Amino acid sequence: MDSNRILKIGLFGFGCVGQGLYDILAREKNLPFQIEKICVKDPAKVRPLPAEEFSFNPEEVLADDQLDLLVEAISDATEAYGIVTAALRKGRRVVTANKKLVAYHLPELLELQEQFGGVLLYEAAVAGGIPIIRTVEEYFSNEPLERVHGILNGSSNYILSQIFQKQKPYADALKEAQDKGFAELDPWLDVAGADSRHKLCILTAHAFGRTLAPQEVAFFGIDSLGNRDLEFARQNGSTIKLVASVHLTPEGEIVPLVLPSLVGDADDLKMVEQEFNGVVVQGGYSGPQLFKGKGAGGHPTGAAVLSDVISISNGYRYGYKKLQQRQAEPALALDFQIEVYLRTSDPNLLESLDFYRQRIIESAADSDSVVGMVTLESLLRNQDKIREAGAFILALSSDFASPKNVKKYEAVELS
Amino acid sequence: MDSNRILKIGLFGFGCVGQGLYDILAREKNLPFQIEKICVKDPAKVRPLPAEEFSFNPEEVLADDQLDLLVEAISDATEAYGIVTAALRKGRRVVTANKKLVAYHLPELLELQEQFGGVLLYEAAVAGGIPIIRTVEEYFSNEPLERVHGILNGSSNYILSQIFQKQKPYADALKEAQDKGFAELDPWLDVAGADSRHKLCILTAHAFGRTLAPQEVAFFGIDSLGNRDLEFARQNGSTIKLVASVHLTPEGEIVPLVLPSLVGDADDLKMVEQEFNGVVVQGGYSGPQLFKGKGAGGHPTGAAVLSDVISISNGYRYGYKKLQQRQAEPALALDFQIEVYLRTSDPNLLESLDFYRQRIIESAADSDSVVGMVTLESLLRNQDKIREAGAFILALSSDFASPKNVKKYEAVELS
Repeated sequence: MDSNRILKIGLFGFGCVGQGLYDILAREKNLPFQIEKICVKDPAKVRPLPAEEFSFNPEEVLADDQLDLLVEAISDATEAYGIVTAALRKGRRVVTANKKLVAYHLPELLELQEQFGGVLLYEAAVAGGIPIIRTVEEYFSNEPLERVHGILNGSSNYILSQIFQKQKPYADALKEAQDKGFAELDPWLDVAGADSRHKLCILTAHAFGRTLAPQEVAFFGIDSLGNRDLEFARQNGSTIKLVASVHLTPEGEIVPLVLPSLVGDADDLKMVEQEFNGVVVQGGYSGPQLFKGKGAGGHPTGAAVLSDVISISNGYRYGYKKLQQRQAEPALALDFQIEVYLRTSDPNLLESLDFYRQRIIESAADSDSVVGMVTLESLLRNQDKIREAGAFILALSSDFASPKNVKKYEAVELS
Repeated sequence: MDSNRILKIGLFGFGCVGQGLYDILAREKNLPFQIEKICVKDPAKVRPLPAEEFSFNPEEVLADDQLDLLVEAISDATEAYGIVTAALRKGRRVVTANKKLVAYHLPELLELQEQFGGVLLYEAAVAGGIPIIRTVEEYFSNEPLERVHGILNGSSNYILSQIFQKQKPYADALKEAQDKGFAELDPWLDVAGADSRHKLCILTAHAFGRTLAPQEVAFFGIDSLGNRDLEFARQNGSTIKLVASVHLTPEGEIVPLVLPSLVGDADDLKMVEQEFNGVVVQGGYSGPQLFKGKGAGGHPTGAAVLSDVISISNGYRYGYKKLQQRQAEPALALDFQIEVYLRTSDPNLLESLDFYRQRIIESAADSDSVVGMVTLESLLRNQDKIREAGAFILALSSDFASPKNVKKYEAVELS
């Protein structure tokens, strides 16, 4: 692209991310980018800009060869899929913030880029304003990584901070997260862990060279968090964070998992509060590196999109170096064991989990909390049952990779 | 460079960093790099490799056109200057880990690259294994930054952790840092803050487009830390960290400063312990981002050098985008005021500091501790006096940029 002229952007979606990008470009007048068209869905919706700035026809925007770059920032992953794949089929340069789209379709998106010569970047899709994909892709490209884990969902982290720091009820905290624009349109994605799962799939491709289908990742959320669970955490001197993690076993298999976790004072994730995200990359030589920054909000996410816009206009594309380098696709470590707390009122659930029940914490008639070891395979197989039962499951330490290092929980008798 | 062949590296220096790089390349056999020659100074020194792997003649290595890349990893900045400038005059691709060299000579190093077409990268020179230069240079290239601050010296941070966490005496902690290979050959550079100052100068060039001469930055260290100072910190519920910081004032001037600082529980730097470094980049849109990782040690620093080696072989060079973009060189905000604690037994020193003495904390005959506001100008003018007097100076919060936010210290009467 000619670097001396203003590059024209076609923007799809004008929600939190789209408006964030628009606002930054309006303020940073020396940047050589201009949003030429904004494509939105609903002509009737009241918007902060004059109607003539909007288009309601994606086909028209996709077909406009005057546009140098396309930015996809709509929340519906199916529509986003249609737009991004159509753009890539035209060999366009595209920036997306849609993690669900990338998580579900990465192999196809890679193929389309190869076939038609387009480019897709998606830094804003993982950990908001933190440049984690770029850092893993570029800086750690040749360092063997041992683990990548962290807090990848700003909305659920905000809720947990409100609950633990300010003793707010779950429902109030959720409403606040929505009011502040941290939550997905469908907040279930945030609080049930599905959004974290999407982001973990993307990170795993860059960090371990494995394109995981979301279905391969067991995920659990905070939507069934109850007072008994809070009490258990507090009595163990810990807070609870929703942790997404993937690590390599000594056998070269991977353990991807999204799971609420006890987080003690010495844990790097302890200081990640409110809408912040935090990612720890454990390098074979560098040791652990923590990246902490805002994981949600129009400006942080808009800044991440802008960084991709600038990179893509400079000819940057992800090299997917770990995918290129790997000799064989790492398998899932299905027999990996993790120590968890589980609260459920359903005795059948406990049975189907093949749970080595180390200690019964509580066995009142209406509730049953146990702590014990469970395999990744059992979590994958039983995750729907656990969700349907309204059970709450919690890792006893965010250090999933080293169960032997788990600080022994106190024997807590809940009343 | 031909990407299908093994690239030959000429390595200068075989201390902690050089051996770290050597060891990583020996383990990662699939990397297309080979250390062909190692140039060291002292032929008599016992080394862990056979004598024939070494050269003792830098001229010979510099003249060897068979070498694709040069890595400079010696501790003497004057010798490093000779080697790196000679290499750049030959248009070579050079990676250095020498922060003092880069801090003192950046304008000349930029000119030499422009004139002779060579390239110089130096990620390992700042914050060890954390990819902070690359991230500021690439990811934040078009975002206006408000502040960059953090803990940039692993050795002094290790010492402070040992003192605060394990109640070790200063001298024992320093010896440990040296034994573990975290300290500079001359540990004064670490503990007096000079090394942090070098790194701050480099960061300022990339973050604010201003090549600072080290002489423009007031620096204070932990070498005169006494028991009374520790008591003051503990009574304020804080620990002490050696903080390097540069921020932009509302008038567009910069405040660069290296100063021990009280760090409370809510401070992002609180969790940066032992030999770790931590850098907070405050972006205008992204908000604060913390990068935490190992700041010293052969493997983390060697991994940073390796990352530069890979980047340089792929054609990467720093764009110095903030230097290119800036309209005028930001001036020093000499009248900027910062709230500090000062302990000195020299009454003349207090007078020359033009100190607004808010509160006398102690006024025993042999010691005098005050807390008050002091200007950047006064710190620059009096820094040598403060050092010579063996005084200890401490910011009351690591948030230098917002003195109004300083949590009011308790009135502490030391016995």
